[in-house]
Amino acid sequence: MTQIINELLGRPLLKIVQDPECFNFSIDSILLANFVSIPSKTKMIVDLGTGNAPIPLYLTLRTKAKIFGIEIQEYSFQLAQKSVKINNKEEQITVLNRDLKGISNELGIHKADVVISNPPFYKVGSFNQNPDERKNIARHEIMATLDDIVKEASLLLNSNGIFAMVHRPDRLVEIIETLRKYKLEPKRIQFVHPKKDKACNHLLIEAVRDGKPGSLKVLEPLVVYNDDNKWTNKILKIYNYEED
Amino acid sequence: MTQIINELLGRPLLKIVQDPECFNFSIDSILLANFVSIPSKTKMIVDLGTGNAPIPLYLTLRTKAKIFGIEIQEYSFQLAQKSVKINNKEEQITVLNRDLKGISNELGIHKADVVISNPPFYKVGSFNQNPDERKNIARHEIMATLDDIVKEASLLLNSNGIFAMVHRPDRLVEIIETLRKYKLEPKRIQFVHPKKDKACNHLLIEAVRDGKPGSLKVLEPLVVYNDDNKWTNKILKIYNYEED
Repeated sequence: MTQIINELLGRPLLKIVQDPECFNFSIDSILLANFVSIPSKTKMIVDLGTGNAPIPLYLTLRTKAKIFGIEIQEYSFQLAQKSVKINNKEEQITVLNRDLKGISNELGIHKADVVISNPPFYKVGSFNQNPDERKNIARHEIMATLDDIVKEASLLLNSNGIFAMVHRPDRLVEIIETLRKYKLEPKRIQFVHPKKDKACNHLLIEAVRDGKPGSLKVLEPLVVYNDDNKWTNKILKIYNYEED
Repeated sequence: MTQIINELLGRPLLKIVQDPECFNFSIDSILLANFVSIPSKTKMIVDLGTGNAPIPLYLTLRTKAKIFGIEIQEYSFQLAQKSVKINNKEEQITVLNRDLKGISNELGIHKADVVISNPPFYKVGSFNQNPDERKNIARHEIMATLDDIVKEASLLLNSNGIFAMVHRPDRLVEIIETLRKYKLEPKRIQFVHPKKDKACNHLLIEAVRDGKPGSLKVLEPLVVYNDDNKWTNKILKIYNYEED
């Protein structure tokens, strides 16, 4: 198993340890870490299904809060630990090799200010299943379903706490219903489009624990590629961690 | 009361009778009439809250189906009738001066193939209420709420029939829940943005009666104005009824 050290961002602010044969972090995680609201009083953040920890690492640029990354797969957990270490973020980030289901029993019920997840997008049995079990677990709802993740987020969050997730638009209706089932009221959505004239392929959604229904904001569309197949300025700014 | 004849579209394909002191048809109605799917076998279409009939008129360019426009306000109904007459569409369009609530008893339960609505966007008591009662009824849920309209659409539609609506994104969660309450499964959404970097201010949504949950498609964003404040090519094509 080959492990390599890549730059997590376009500027050498952060590094990440990856195994090219494994499921590697994607631009989705960076977009989500950039999208989520982090109120100034935030003390505790939890990333459910952290992989090799791209989201906790990016968030260290935005907040001094304590960040927990939860990862069920041992090998991904090892990569995450190495990534945290080479960036000298052991003080701020704690990676735990645990099942996210029930993690609120360990971290505390209704203690977190922000919970984030880049979850498996596909239902078990849906197309595109991968022969590699590790990749399957990252992509398909084998170890945790949408319901499991939202339920755990709801248990972790304090009242008015924030949950943010990246997911597929074809499941938007189910996502909204599941959030409301667990008292998470959708408040901000951003739709991600590969090009400006293409249908949405990912969405970023943020909900507030015990939030009052209504006043959802749909942000400007986030377009990933220009017509020349290069990243748009907006994506470059996020990737290089530049202010608008 | 001054009534004037305007062009409904950029090309002189259709005319519309308006009163500048009244609530006039907006680009929303044109976008909705362009957005809605009209299956080839469509025989009957109903427009709930038709105003001066911009949606039925636009639809005559797309289909030979019989179109019913329902309008509770007598003066708007009169404008609609004149608009239908000056376009010689009396054979295809029937405008009825009725309350949309209960109209399925007159037009038939589960008989329509397509139901459309550009409804009042605002709840009663919300900001921006207008001293003009006619404008209020068009903009605020005085005579019919979202629930009333969706319920009636569901009664009108046959199984697999299509319901399409334009609305405000801040009510997206309520819209989705109301659609599902009445067995209308959301299948296509398009978010409309005034400019490419501005938040969404209108959404177009289409649902299928008794549709199977899932596989929602979020179309490419529809941007109305370029940075120079002129309509985008996409809007001009819709307004001029040109094919892509």
